[in-house]
Amino acid sequence: MVIYLDNNATTKVDKRVLDAMLPYLEEEYANPSSMYQFSVKSSKAIAQARAQLRDFFGAKSEREVIFTSCGSESANTAIKGVLAANKNKKHIITTKVEHPCVLNLYQTLEKQGYRVDYIGVHADGSLDIEELKEKIDDETALVSVMWANNETGVLFPVEEIGEIIKSKNPETKFFVDAVQASGKIGFNLKDTNIDLLGVSGHKFHAPKGIGALYVKSNVIIPPLIVGGHQERGMRAGTENVPYIVGLGVAAELAKDALNYETTEIKRLRNKLETGILKRVFNSRLNSSISNRVPNTSNIGFEYIEGELILLHLSDLGICASSGSACTSGSLEPSHVLRAMGVPFTSLHGSIRFSLSRFTTEEEIDYTLEKLPQVIEKIVKLSPYQDELEHLRKSKV
Amino acid sequence: MVIYLDNNATTKVDKRVLDAMLPYLEEEYANPSSMYQFSVKSSKAIAQARAQLRDFFGAKSEREVIFTSCGSESANTAIKGVLAANKNKKHIITTKVEHPCVLNLYQTLEKQGYRVDYIGVHADGSLDIEELKEKIDDETALVSVMWANNETGVLFPVEEIGEIIKSKNPETKFFVDAVQASGKIGFNLKDTNIDLLGVSGHKFHAPKGIGALYVKSNVIIPPLIVGGHQERGMRAGTENVPYIVGLGVAAELAKDALNYETTEIKRLRNKLETGILKRVFNSRLNSSISNRVPNTSNIGFEYIEGELILLHLSDLGICASSGSACTSGSLEPSHVLRAMGVPFTSLHGSIRFSLSRFTTEEEIDYTLEKLPQVIEKIVKLSPYQDELEHLRKSKV
Repeated sequence: MVIYLDNNATTKVDKRVLDAMLPYLEEEYANPSSMYQFSVKSSKAIAQARAQLRDFFGAKSEREVIFTSCGSESANTAIKGVLAANKNKKHIITTKVEHPCVLNLYQTLEKQGYRVDYIGVHADGSLDIEELKEKIDDETALVSVMWANNETGVLFPVEEIGEIIKSKNPETKFFVDAVQASGKIGFNLKDTNIDLLGVSGHKFHAPKGIGALYVKSNVIIPPLIVGGHQERGMRAGTENVPYIVGLGVAAELAKDALNYETTEIKRLRNKLETGILKRVFNSRLNSSISNRVPNTSNIGFEYIEGELILLHLSDLGICASSGSACTSGSLEPSHVLRAMGVPFTSLHGSIRFSLSRFTTEEEIDYTLEKLPQVIEKIVKLSPYQDELEHLRKSKV
Repeated sequence: MVIYLDNNATTKVDKRVLDAMLPYLEEEYANPSSMYQFSVKSSKAIAQARAQLRDFFGAKSEREVIFTSCGSESANTAIKGVLAANKNKKHIITTKVEHPCVLNLYQTLEKQGYRVDYIGVHADGSLDIEELKEKIDDETALVSVMWANNETGVLFPVEEIGEIIKSKNPETKFFVDAVQASGKIGFNLKDTNIDLLGVSGHKFHAPKGIGALYVKSNVIIPPLIVGGHQERGMRAGTENVPYIVGLGVAAELAKDALNYETTEIKRLRNKLETGILKRVFNSRLNSSISNRVPNTSNIGFEYIEGELILLHLSDLGICASSGSACTSGSLEPSHVLRAMGVPFTSLHGSIRFSLSRFTTEEEIDYTLEKLPQVIEKIVKLSPYQDELEHLRKSKV
């Protein structure tokens, strides 16, 4: 039995996505760039997927959609592309709570001579907009902000940030990492100041290994992968037709499921969250209650070790995580929770639960039944018995 | 009906490859970096595929295998990586007949200040080794040569080239584009001076959207896609588990099929080739007869247009091409055939036929029956009637 409450790490491929892909893994295998009749269906399938992504993004045109192999490629293409197209500007603004993938890239760029400002967050995970505003100057090539945080689900007001950026410096480009927002909130990019935005298919029920990048039509960047004419010269390499088709269908399904996401998934997430906070005396919510995606809950369990909780949950078939999968195995506490000032007493014992459209009421009930028992077992092993006893009494 | 004689453009996914992939597109969807039990099968599947690629490459260690999203990404990672790791050396040597993807990248690098020498080929498509030898100097960061040509199938002696490079300048790195050689000849890289070598899965019956890069253990390059710790920090992005599994199986199958490739596929290719050369008076073979991969034949039809031949073949369900799919649609004659000095009379009428393990005797017989009729039809429309008449008489 697997109870998968780690849908911010990856998601199950929707059967409708797989069904749409299969013909292109079987008989319709033509290279879409070929000239014969056999390739027409492949190239039309890509065009259709591009239209589906245009709708998903709320973009003006299909020409603003580039297919990539993953969210990391989308981010690398956007960030390195903007900097290569604006060689004289050496200042970048980002946040302290970006995904480690993006932070690693900025650390690499710092070594290459870029000046990078990392904007902080408040205790509820919201961004320090005033600090961001102050940092923008004439030298700022790029502002790079995630839409939804992968660990807490907290949403940043990217529309507002876009307006601030353009009012301070119209030439500064704005990249939004929407990997964790996609499928959870709606996009309408044509009405925003967002110049580039990256998504990853496997976070919304397409397979791992496909992503997309929105590039506003007036923004010119060089390709990361140079070569053939695919994606109008913006991304070389024979097109991954099956996955592109799958991404298109997944985008359409995600758009259709937004209502379900904000009602039913949110109801289940809230049931899990309030259930845990009520039943487990040493639990506390990391993040604001309201301003976040509907599927994510990050809960701290004070005075105990998160890895131990995850191990016990894994034995019960329950999958959750202590941060991004990309940093799992590391014993460093979460950089996101540290930036929020989460007290050290629950920093090491914080767990992320993330739901999807495949999460069931039974799974939430089972988790709510088992988790308190797991925590009680681990609490007994904690060296902080006095503090725990004090906490238990204060909560009654 | 589709008679697919364009297997250098892409190949059909082998059913055994797809069957191995499917569980990872269905129930086994865990992120391989996650810490729970559910992810163990995914991460073990990647380890197995890496071992299969090690065997396919004839590499010393699994650590020399990096999974990428395509051949273009493999080439970009290798080439930009070597140059970034050797910033002071600004000289590159490549050939005039590389894949357009690689040539485009070098043209971009020339604009960035690199000095690039493009080595020529002889009339049979073989490389001018003497010219290459002369060009290597102290400043040479990289020599970059394809193993098998995509248009003609001609093989370059990369083992010998590797020895020449290292004897002239041991610090020069050697990258081999093996996209068209993979699955057609065996590799034993541990006994060569090849430092980096790229392949693309969809050329040997894995899907489009997966590739691999061999990087010899003593060669250090930075990643193209910076971010998470995947591929030991050499390539960020959540692993495309289904396609990686598929690539592993395809590599194993290709290794097992090498004998079939060099006997049965070669027999069918030779039957097609000698049949055409015998039956069509204005045909001539582009490339050497012997020193090439077993599946490819490039034939020039004098005084007629290749696009017209392809159109007629397409109507009959026969897929062939006039060059790489990446440049199809362009009216420029092939840079490969021009470098070989193919006379202009057949330059525009050259067609590539490329077979695979799925090509049947019936398909070859059908093509041999139909092609001469197609050519006769087009010959009648040619403005070069006198020349054609002369040629016809001289062939009798």
